[in-house]
Amino acid sequence: MLDHSATWDGLPAATQALIVTNTTVGPLYAARLQQALAGRFGQVHVLQLPDGEGYKSWDSLNQVFDALLSHACDRKTMLFALGGGVVGDLTGFAAACYMRGVPFVQVPTTLLAQVDSSVGGKTAINHPLGKNMIGAFYQPLRVVCDLDTLRTLPAREISAGLAEVIKYGPICDLAFLDWIDSNLEALRRLDPAALAYAVRRSCEIKAAVVGQDERETGLRAILNFGHTFGHAIEAGLGYGQWLHGEAVGCGMVLAARLSQRLGLLSAQRVQHLSDLIGRAGLPVRAPRLEPDPVANASRYLDLMRIDKKSEAGQLRFVLVDDAGAPHLQPVPDALVREVIEAGCA
Amino acid sequence: MLDHSATWDGLPAATQALIVTNTTVGPLYAARLQQALAGRFGQVHVLQLPDGEGYKSWDSLNQVFDALLSHACDRKTMLFALGGGVVGDLTGFAAACYMRGVPFVQVPTTLLAQVDSSVGGKTAINHPLGKNMIGAFYQPLRVVCDLDTLRTLPAREISAGLAEVIKYGPICDLAFLDWIDSNLEALRRLDPAALAYAVRRSCEIKAAVVGQDERETGLRAILNFGHTFGHAIEAGLGYGQWLHGEAVGCGMVLAARLSQRLGLLSAQRVQHLSDLIGRAGLPVRAPRLEPDPVANASRYLDLMRIDKKSEAGQLRFVLVDDAGAPHLQPVPDALVREVIEAGCA
Repeated sequence: MLDHSATWDGLPAATQALIVTNTTVGPLYAARLQQALAGRFGQVHVLQLPDGEGYKSWDSLNQVFDALLSHACDRKTMLFALGGGVVGDLTGFAAACYMRGVPFVQVPTTLLAQVDSSVGGKTAINHPLGKNMIGAFYQPLRVVCDLDTLRTLPAREISAGLAEVIKYGPICDLAFLDWIDSNLEALRRLDPAALAYAVRRSCEIKAAVVGQDERETGLRAILNFGHTFGHAIEAGLGYGQWLHGEAVGCGMVLAARLSQRLGLLSAQRVQHLSDLIGRAGLPVRAPRLEPDPVANASRYLDLMRIDKKSEAGQLRFVLVDDAGAPHLQPVPDALVREVIEAGCA
Repeated sequence: MLDHSATWDGLPAATQALIVTNTTVGPLYAARLQQALAGRFGQVHVLQLPDGEGYKSWDSLNQVFDALLSHACDRKTMLFALGGGVVGDLTGFAAACYMRGVPFVQVPTTLLAQVDSSVGGKTAINHPLGKNMIGAFYQPLRVVCDLDTLRTLPAREISAGLAEVIKYGPICDLAFLDWIDSNLEALRRLDPAALAYAVRRSCEIKAAVVGQDERETGLRAILNFGHTFGHAIEAGLGYGQWLHGEAVGCGMVLAARLSQRLGLLSAQRVQHLSDLIGRAGLPVRAPRLEPDPVANASRYLDLMRIDKKSEAGQLRFVLVDDAGAPHLQPVPDALVREVIEAGCA
């Protein structure tokens, strides 16, 4: 699909295009995309960045700017993000900033990017002190999901993507959660019909939420279910140790337990979600960041306090209830500490 | 004015604020602003960056992010840009990107920033290969111009600011150009009534233009009269050698001559504008970037080709006519070369 010229009909004209990809995805798909775009742009450049969350950095962003400026790219130049969430977030942010904004297209090649990060216009890079701290809300012109690209994805990456698919269930669609429960094995073996439905339904839900609150002044935050704990895991272990989806999977188990402590969610629902996440091939026990339990919980709290949902130093969590509705609310540190201690490996 | 608490009435509440300033302006005004804001925010931090266009860089931007993150600033934190165009552009861009956008207030302390850069929401940093290449359109909550701060400004900076005041005349208001002509000496000696009128009228014109075209898809580009040549001068000499306003002053003389070559502007109008720019204390002869005339013009053209108004490698200039109307159009390289050769010192 991505290598068919017709896929790209209707894009505005420009003299130049830049495909940003990484050293894993580039060798597989960049030449095909470049060829498909060749008739539409005078020049189609390719920039390959190193692969991994650790490269969602200033340094990589600057490589994109250097490439654009060294080719004298003007402000109609179109960027194509060919890869997973790291490439998409970083390329989108580069597009948002280059000459104060050039058009860009998302071509997600991981399940996680197809069901979540490529949709909705959140772009960012990481800062050593926090994930996605530097970024912009900037919408792609188009998102092209080619399910065939998922065939080359390692099983671990499929599991990581399933975390974000599962996420949509507890926060707003228990029927979808049931469907995932019944189709999890089909999804893991990349059954085309199951994948197509999961990607479509995920994008529908995400688009509906973002359509009501693009800039995350309220509702959009529910899409971060599991992400506050998840970000702390990623930052605490060092970006790239756990995949984002793995951290979110485990984070959802912790967030569900927190919801249970607050009387929102039944023990049965917590168990069901935890089992599903485990069956998806994701970790359900959080990593211990410090040997001492008190120090460990403190480390988690410190890492979570720089979460973007925090206000005035007060942690706020996305919680869920038995009816499949989300709750964004502050939670006392003591409760969070209990959940961390009980949930750590 | 900036040190009166009442000036800041009506701003939204936040736990923290960060004043970004530089080592020249900070010692004069930061403590007064900090005190005026103290009752409104739990904590008001101050970050002093080195002074100068050379510091409108990645590195300075990162210092703002480091300060925000090390104080655990949340996404309601308000930034205050206390200084000239460099501080305003950089702080605005930091506000646009930190956690994908926090509110900010412009407190311009140079004439140039008060009449031009603080209004309209253009924020950016420089890239070694081009000025203002990395940035965002991001509006300040408020712009507070305290004319008293201009009293500590060196005469050279007043002249640089006058370049942007003069600019508004040829592009759309010949009556204002006449007023400047009659009041230039009063402005240079900082006559309060003359200054107040010049700042107000400049902001009115800028707001009217930006109000019609915030993202510079067309009309807004007229505000860049003199800037294409000016940016080449700044980049060619190395940022900070000439002040931005000096380069723009000289750039307007070249742009006026180009307008004359194209039959838009009379020789008399060109001479009048050049005289006025000279009387404002600004250079009217362009610097020679290479000893050889052909190489010199080529260097200018190369530097201008990465101007954001360029499209498909074709230079576009803001030109003006005898009726005080602007024209944004491509110009053949040969004509530009003639104007550069005739205009260089």
